[in-house]
Amino acid sequence: MEKLYVIKIGGNIVDNPALLTACLTAFSTLKGQAILVHGGGKLATELATSLGVAQTMVEGRRVTDTETLKIVTMVYAGYINKNIVAQLQALGINAMGLTGVDGNLISAHKRTGASIDYGWVGDVDGINETLVTQLLTNHTKLVVAPITHDGHGQLLNTNADTIAQSMAVGMAKQYEVHLIYGFEKEGVLSDLNDPNSVIPFMDTSSYCNLKEQKIIIEGMIPKMDNAYLALEGGVQSVIIGKAEKLQELINGTAGTTIKL
Amino acid sequence: MEKLYVIKIGGNIVDNPALLTACLTAFSTLKGQAILVHGGGKLATELATSLGVAQTMVEGRRVTDTETLKIVTMVYAGYINKNIVAQLQALGINAMGLTGVDGNLISAHKRTGASIDYGWVGDVDGINETLVTQLLTNHTKLVVAPITHDGHGQLLNTNADTIAQSMAVGMAKQYEVHLIYGFEKEGVLSDLNDPNSVIPFMDTSSYCNLKEQKIIIEGMIPKMDNAYLALEGGVQSVIIGKAEKLQELINGTAGTTIKL
Repeated sequence: MEKLYVIKIGGNIVDNPALLTACLTAFSTLKGQAILVHGGGKLATELATSLGVAQTMVEGRRVTDTETLKIVTMVYAGYINKNIVAQLQALGINAMGLTGVDGNLISAHKRTGASIDYGWVGDVDGINETLVTQLLTNHTKLVVAPITHDGHGQLLNTNADTIAQSMAVGMAKQYEVHLIYGFEKEGVLSDLNDPNSVIPFMDTSSYCNLKEQKIIIEGMIPKMDNAYLALEGGVQSVIIGKAEKLQELINGTAGTTIKL
Repeated sequence: MEKLYVIKIGGNIVDNPALLTACLTAFSTLKGQAILVHGGGKLATELATSLGVAQTMVEGRRVTDTETLKIVTMVYAGYINKNIVAQLQALGINAMGLTGVDGNLISAHKRTGASIDYGWVGDVDGINETLVTQLLTNHTKLVVAPITHDGHGQLLNTNADTIAQSMAVGMAKQYEVHLIYGFEKEGVLSDLNDPNSVIPFMDTSSYCNLKEQKIIIEGMIPKMDNAYLALEGGVQSVIIGKAEKLQELINGTAGTTIKL
């Protein structure tokens, strides 16, 4: 099976031009098929502040009213996505920037039934595997912005970690998929105050132990839950660490590798 | 040869939700291959005003400083492009929204040597015919936002009429291309005060006569120049008229059809 790397980079990377360039340079040297999923970063919040659109965050998630949806669509699908693609093109990589709406890449529905009304926030139903295969086969690297749609003309703000996980699982039937969550830390740490305390390898039983011992704590748990959903969906490994160390993460010489 | 329609819709259409929906509905019923190129509209200017970024227009063209480039990238490639694609998807059309940077669809360079410094404005060098053919063959309709790149990581604001003309010419070797400029008027008028005075057909000699007689005047001349560049580049016909009358424009029962 051919290898496919699905790499998610978070807002902290997108916000930092030097770090972003380091990540994209690492991405550009990657051998094999790859999909990059990017988060939002501070720019949407800054634009909302400039425009006087009040922002409400609940458990780290942005409540998305109509004006906020307009802002995140502009920032994620427009500014961030196109600048990343332009940088990758300059590095000689044939990248294409897409949202979930383009070619119906990701179908989703508005989140309902939650105790909090998140507004125009989407939960993923599935991905267009045929389209992804076509594009990858044509030697295109995909750059995905976290905007999806409901098929009835409504755009939806969607969590980038979840998109990465859905893309990884969706392609796991055809590829040997490795899902990489790039963030600002070296990996999953056993001591939050010690950046060198990376846990290099985790399986289900060691994860449960670490959770019981409260070594893995709140901020990391949604990421880990996404990681396990991916593994249970057929993804080969999930790796968490610094995205600019992409090759080392893949080699297993940096970050935390998680398997079932 | 298979037919390909390259349809450009201007800012006046993008600004008017009812008109835009009518255009997209007409687009969705079109038989054959199609590419939609959209302009910008007032939203970029409104956003610039809200953000206190002064705008300079020279001969209808936006001088694009760094902050303005950010704004047009957000508005054209983000908000407008993704909303058009979401509407088309809701109409059952498999549309994909792209800028010139995506898959290196359109290569361009920063305009230099003009008497006016337009800033981050691009002139088109060429289009990626292979990519367009691949996407069209996979039954995808393209929706193109007027943002290009220079191949060195720099995004460029680019005239949508020119992009439509470049796409039409680029594909004329492989398709029988018809280029349609959709705008707010019924067609090229012989009397600007009479909306019914549409000139139904024009060839080179009648165009020259009309220009000599000053019946075709300033505002229309750049559009006509683009039309003739397209025809000289191998495009079969250029049609100018109301985009919501797409089928009638194609049938020749509305608008102005221009041939060599």
